[in-house]
Amino acid sequence: MTDHIAFSPDRHALLLLDQRFLPDREESFVCRNTADTIYALQTMVVRGAPAIGVTAAYGCYLAAREACEAGGGWKEKLEGLLTELESARPTAVNLRWGVERMRQKWRELGDISLEALLSEWLGLAETMQAEDIEINKAMGKNGAALIDDGDTVMTHCNAGALATAGYGTALGVIRAAFEQGKRIKVIANETRPFLQGARLTAYELAKEGIPVTVACDNAVGHLMKKGMVQKVVVGADRIAANGDAANKIGTYTVALAAKAHGVPFYVAAPASTFDLTLASGELIPIENRTPREVTHVGEHRITPEGVPVYNFAFDVTPAELIAGIITEKGVLTAPYTDAIRAAIGGK
Amino acid sequence: MTDHIAFSPDRHALLLLDQRFLPDREESFVCRNTADTIYALQTMVVRGAPAIGVTAAYGCYLAAREACEAGGGWKEKLEGLLTELESARPTAVNLRWGVERMRQKWRELGDISLEALLSEWLGLAETMQAEDIEINKAMGKNGAALIDDGDTVMTHCNAGALATAGYGTALGVIRAAFEQGKRIKVIANETRPFLQGARLTAYELAKEGIPVTVACDNAVGHLMKKGMVQKVVVGADRIAANGDAANKIGTYTVALAAKAHGVPFYVAAPASTFDLTLASGELIPIENRTPREVTHVGEHRITPEGVPVYNFAFDVTPAELIAGIITEKGVLTAPYTDAIRAAIGGK
Repeated sequence: MTDHIAFSPDRHALLLLDQRFLPDREESFVCRNTADTIYALQTMVVRGAPAIGVTAAYGCYLAAREACEAGGGWKEKLEGLLTELESARPTAVNLRWGVERMRQKWRELGDISLEALLSEWLGLAETMQAEDIEINKAMGKNGAALIDDGDTVMTHCNAGALATAGYGTALGVIRAAFEQGKRIKVIANETRPFLQGARLTAYELAKEGIPVTVACDNAVGHLMKKGMVQKVVVGADRIAANGDAANKIGTYTVALAAKAHGVPFYVAAPASTFDLTLASGELIPIENRTPREVTHVGEHRITPEGVPVYNFAFDVTPAELIAGIITEKGVLTAPYTDAIRAAIGGK
Repeated sequence: MTDHIAFSPDRHALLLLDQRFLPDREESFVCRNTADTIYALQTMVVRGAPAIGVTAAYGCYLAAREACEAGGGWKEKLEGLLTELESARPTAVNLRWGVERMRQKWRELGDISLEALLSEWLGLAETMQAEDIEINKAMGKNGAALIDDGDTVMTHCNAGALATAGYGTALGVIRAAFEQGKRIKVIANETRPFLQGARLTAYELAKEGIPVTVACDNAVGHLMKKGMVQKVVVGADRIAANGDAANKIGTYTVALAAKAHGVPFYVAAPASTFDLTLASGELIPIENRTPREVTHVGEHRITPEGVPVYNFAFDVTPAELIAGIITEKGVLTAPYTDAIRAAIGGK
């Protein structure tokens, strides 16, 4: 599954597999300008930190096309659009990383025409997409060594092909272990409220014949107590310099249960996920999303009218609960500050 | 809310407020015989350990009416129906407790006519219903002393008026604290898959003006880490002789998070919830329910076709995670085996 982020043949539109409707139907969402890209990011047509990074790169290219209309003032117009784009969602650092990499290219190119910039940016975005798959495969190989034959691996949310350019981070580790012939099973936590586990992880793994069972998020303690989970592997949206990792809401609760039961808890994330400007996870901004994701499932309302809800989209797992951070550069272990500085410092 | 388990004026039918449809609509489910009662218990028209106990008592009365049809063989017929009834659900001990209390009455009455038994049983069932409310109020008073002014109290599932004959166990404690003028807030975990928290707890508390916010189950760790929870109070479906408590799936995960954050975790349950024949919670049978509760929300399918799911309906919280068990006889604390024997042994 590597075609869920793709350009139309005429290069005028970015086509995203609309993850809001999976597994019900496979439908494309068409982005023609920055507003479309921001809408797709904010409503989670596309989600998952690395996929957000790649989408952001293509979004910059679309923004540059849009800036054409401004004529001579295209640079100011483009700068404004990039600033809007990188603020679309606050938690995943890959969004800013994707935009910043495009900006960096622009700076390197100096005083360039818009036409030339468009050509350079399209090439870079395509490179970033291809690189992401290679990075995921490297992470998969590094992480697969941690998975034993016969393991049941729990994962939370969807850190799969759909959350990346392809292959996946946490699911990349699972895919790689499976491809190595290890007989593994997966428990996909359903991951309320957006149900990325029930909808997307189950969909991806079932498609590839990797045995997967969906569980409600609250079953995590019981499943671990019954000895039904040998490893946990999750993705991350941002990792601070000390190894604290922000990921989908519920991840921290899984980590607490894993700690209580001696189940190793791993985070799989590419170098682009690390934010060395933040000393600890407490500084990572946590997105608050619309109540409707909690109050409704599809069109079905589940809470009484007028009752407020919490919808924090992410939480932070402190480094001390993490047995290892699986990256394309190897598996980092405590003490994380040193390990991260050594491996990622010069990314 | 004390009329959700009520007899029709002609005593021919038990009318249950159908909790499957709350908060969408308030609709009665009519039980005319044992099959109806068993259906209502199994599909969770009525749920919650104490409510199951009272429904079972009325169910015995309906079974005795049904046994009339057997003529001379009514005793055998009735015995058979009671055995079916008490096996309707495996985890809540109150179901067997309710049936056993009716059987005990029958034994005491000796060789009695069916007409006389019907009259005695109706009286006893009504007494049990009234007693349950009194017990809940006593528990509420005992538990309210543990809640401080300004606390936010987290609860899981629905241990409220709807889970009892009225007033509630865990929500009885919250109601009592609120009635004492304490300014408290409640976080109701939505409680997948049946959503008793989102649907029933939110509905009950909102009706009474007690501030309530619904959160997804997986947010528990994050909410506690942010200092947003001062106490946890939950109900129980069965408590073993050592204090291990079975309750709705997810309770154990909440208890693990509470332990990690130093948040006191209380269980509120009447004496009828204790099963002193079981030395520990590991012996409590855990009901496995239909996959459809997990795969669908309302008519909306959330998992891909063909992907299996886990639907364990309960889990067991070990006594060492419980700060106190709130009963009508006082608040029991560790060491639980002694405290339970002393308070409940001669129930």
